[in-house]
Amino acid sequence: MITLEVTTRQRAELIDITDQVRQTIRKTGIDQGIACLHVPHTTSAITINENADPDVVQDLLLGLERLAPRDAGYRHAEGNSDAHIKSSLLGVDQTLLIEDGAPVLGIWQSIYFCEFDGPRRRKLHIRILET
Amino acid sequence: MITLEVTTRQRAELIDITDQVRQTIRKTGIDQGIACLHVPHTTSAITINENADPDVVQDLLLGLERLAPRDAGYRHAEGNSDAHIKSSLLGVDQTLLIEDGAPVLGIWQSIYFCEFDGPRRRKLHIRILET
Amino acid sequence: MITLEVTTRQRAELIDITDQVRQTIRKTGIDQGIACLHVPHTTSAITINENADPDVVQDLLLGLERLAPRDAGYRHAEGNSDAHIKSSLLGVDQTLLIEDGAPVLGIWQSIYFCEFDGPRRRKLHIRILET
Repeated sequence: MITLEVTTRQRAELIDITDQVRQTIRKTGIDQGIACLHVPHTTSAITINENADPDVVQDLLLGLERLAPRDAGYRHAEGNSDAHIKSSLLGVDQTLLIEDGAPVLGIWQSIYFCEFDGPRRRKLHIRILET
Repeated sequence: MITLEVTTRQRAELIDITDQVRQTIRKTGIDQGIACLHVPHTTSAITINENADPDVVQDLLLGLERLAPRDAGYRHAEGNSDAHIKSSLLGVDQTLLIEDGAPVLGIWQSIYFCEFDGPRRRKLHIRILET
Repeated sequence: MITLEVTTRQRAELIDITDQVRQTIRKTGIDQGIACLHVPHTTSAITINENADPDVVQDLLLGLERLAPRDAGYRHAEGNSDAHIKSSLLGVDQTLLIEDGAPVLGIWQSIYFCEFDGPRRRKLHIRILET
């Protein structure tokens, strides 16, 4: 199992980790298989979406904020229930296919680490299985 | 493939199945690998979120009810379209990393079986792959 | 890695690909394992939900449209930010368990390819691991 570190700077932020993940896979020397990613935090998530226009990521954050506004009358006293809801909506795991030593991604796809209650220093675990 | 049983008691409920999953993995004697979970029901789901304050789970149920209210004018005659929508939003599969014979989870993370149209007796399938 | 093709005919559409996936798995001759699916597009997704009443799929599309309406004031100039948001909410990967040479699905479950900015010709990648 390999663990990457990600540092976020905003309360809600999507960070493109595609290059980090690609290099991690390349270093293992595995040509064909899968990579299983797990985020061990409850206000974070992982998603794959467009990398060309940064407005898409901003619209994704905006859309999620509309779905779970920060101050929408929750019970949990820490004031970050919206972040927990967003984490479950996007999910904390992601499985990637590996072909020719690299993650299989569409031309417009990047992998994003998502933090909804930052800024934070976060971890991302990766396990790679060969086929 | 191993199949666990889960009994729910409310219409919408999140049940912490972390111990059941941990014991299931331990019994296989597998030290390193992944565990793939699948919920074979269409009004259920699986998610990972905070285990410390039970208010977080209640806020998650509240947040999902706001996203897909029970009586929001759907076509499906059974009156549980909201539960099908919630199932797809959280998803019916989850992949866990296994290290030292146990699922890799953050200190605040628990695994929750989610039912949105209960009470029900439900199943959860688990397949474990060694690396 | 096997690649399937899917053609969509509406802007937003869920297409039942269960038979295609089942046949793909059967052709490999693998009896026990997992199948990892990946959609390489940023306005598409994959989900598993009910196959009995087609109204459920229509209600799922309706529910998602309420969560991320098409014209809700986004930044991205292409006018499909709602489709990117829906893609991240449902996710672009799905892991299936394989038992007796077939995907493990509940009696009411089908696998749906989801397109939210069609009509399009789309791809779906599948990697199968034997256990």
